[in-house]
Amino acid sequence: MADGGITHDTIVHGGDLDAARRLFPGAPEPWIDLSTGINPVPYPLPPLIASALHRLPSPGDLARLKAAAAAAYGAPGPDHVAAAPGTQILIETLPRLLPRSRVAVVGPTYAEHAAAWTRSGHAVRMVADPAEAEGAEVLVAVSPNNPDGRVFSPAALARAAGGGLVVLDQAFADLEPVEAATPGPAFVILRSFGKTYGLAGLRLGFALAEPALARRLESALGPWAVSGPAIAAGCAALPDAEWRREAAAARGQDAARLDRMIARAGGRVVGGTALFRTADFPDAPGLYRALGEAGIYVRRFPGAPERLRFGLPPDKAAWCRLSRVLR
Amino acid sequence: MADGGITHDTIVHGGDLDAARRLFPGAPEPWIDLSTGINPVPYPLPPLIASALHRLPSPGDLARLKAAAAAAYGAPGPDHVAAAPGTQILIETLPRLLPRSRVAVVGPTYAEHAAAWTRSGHAVRMVADPAEAEGAEVLVAVSPNNPDGRVFSPAALARAAGGGLVVLDQAFADLEPVEAATPGPAFVILRSFGKTYGLAGLRLGFALAEPALARRLESALGPWAVSGPAIAAGCAALPDAEWRREAAAARGQDAARLDRMIARAGGRVVGGTALFRTADFPDAPGLYRALGEAGIYVRRFPGAPERLRFGLPPDKAAWCRLSRVLR
Repeated sequence: MADGGITHDTIVHGGDLDAARRLFPGAPEPWIDLSTGINPVPYPLPPLIASALHRLPSPGDLARLKAAAAAAYGAPGPDHVAAAPGTQILIETLPRLLPRSRVAVVGPTYAEHAAAWTRSGHAVRMVADPAEAEGAEVLVAVSPNNPDGRVFSPAALARAAGGGLVVLDQAFADLEPVEAATPGPAFVILRSFGKTYGLAGLRLGFALAEPALARRLESALGPWAVSGPAIAAGCAALPDAEWRREAAAARGQDAARLDRMIARAGGRVVGGTALFRTADFPDAPGLYRALGEAGIYVRRFPGAPERLRFGLPPDKAAWCRLSRVLR
Repeated sequence: MADGGITHDTIVHGGDLDAARRLFPGAPEPWIDLSTGINPVPYPLPPLIASALHRLPSPGDLARLKAAAAAAYGAPGPDHVAAAPGTQILIETLPRLLPRSRVAVVGPTYAEHAAAWTRSGHAVRMVADPAEAEGAEVLVAVSPNNPDGRVFSPAALARAAGGGLVVLDQAFADLEPVEAATPGPAFVILRSFGKTYGLAGLRLGFALAEPALARRLESALGPWAVSGPAIAAGCAALPDAEWRREAAAARGQDAARLDRMIARAGGRVVGGTALFRTADFPDAPGLYRALGEAGIYVRRFPGAPERLRFGLPPDKAAWCRLSRVLR
């Protein structure tokens, strides 16, 4: 799958219900959006302190957020953390801070990685496996991978990079039994807040990196890039390991239930995480249409017409509506 | 005032109450923060729809925000608008999208402008007046200017730029009787949402520019740079011209009251806007200390020790506390 040269306009993302409505104008409302991998059961936020909205976030607010992120993600300290309004802008920014390099992206995966490195003038090639990255100066991997759920161990990625830089996107790692990676001179890790905590609209993400690079990332975004509400939410949710454990268990059960429904509908689950399941179907285009006509929006992949990806239904009514199509 | 080469670490900003507490550890709490030019009477936001927090903002959400911004700011249409999580990141981003140029910044002014153009490799000089910008390919002006309130007409700036690009930061224009500028091939305008509407923590700002440049700015930030709550707030507040008129009148009265208190304390108001007043004092360092010891944080300027800037007190108690020091 060659992503080189792809612009934002040509990369298809989930979560755009307007697009779903245009495709299936007769579908019942409200739509059920299963096109993303966002936790449908959000973290119960404490009431927002008004000052988080009204005043500029202070350096102290940001320091508290970064300390909470370092503790939650296992970084050596807050100086290894760059906070951003979502991981996407870090994916955009990182490639333009680094010297032009030979970059290998393990894929198919989230298309914005290859596109961002290409836009910044790096020489990008897609590899199906980290072992094929020989000669690359930067190795980019998403683990667990989106959409197929493949997991790459940090040690294996470091070996495959052979001394080069590893950029490891762990956007879907929080609720999985996967090894946390430690940032260092040859290891940059991206972490997404919104997916795990069901707060994607808030825009909050992190890069874990050696302090000099973390500072450069933050400097490129300028002061106050992260909103007061996002800082407040991060400071409340990131230290709450118990909520994360319970969410991992509950969403894991949801994922298993979804797998059973997919199998009943003739699908073969090829992978996923606790927040989404990816499956191949004998007639995926037909199923996509049946789902769309029932007001259920799932993710399809231009390069893999047999494949669909399902996020988790948010409530009983959504599970029932999905069950009526997947049978 | 030479700002060239200044980094984020060395630019002093208002709004950092932790810094105030370190300077005046014995001051009464809560502090009164008059160190910024943020409207102390925020726009009354409608209750936030939960989906603004939970799901990713959609392209349709962003399109509605940009249409509201174009109408409020007098841009020809939404294609002339780039939305961002605050104006600051636009100040960072714009210089690196343009060819290396000779840049004149009218100042003293908000220090991040000169710093950002310098960081991106442009040749930056400070000029005291637009008329001194001869030979510049880019002319940067803040109008009304921060901190002295000077106003530059768009036509005069265009003349001074002599066919070069004008970058006009109208962060403080919304509540002033100043001429709105129209974006075009040689005119980029920055607009700040948080100051006018008292919602600086939300992070929302706009660039108005010709469509190709607006697209490049948005592309540099990537999809979903603006949060769901910020989009919802912008869509609610930007069409509300009546609130803006009433806020301009009320804050104008506040500013006049502040001017009278400043004069009573021996200060000479050198300028300002409806959201802040800047004044010279016979003993500004002594007054700064007296205010700090009373738990009132105002803005001072390293390059102008005789000068202080006051934001508007938020309520009666704050007016009273300020009045006890300014006499």
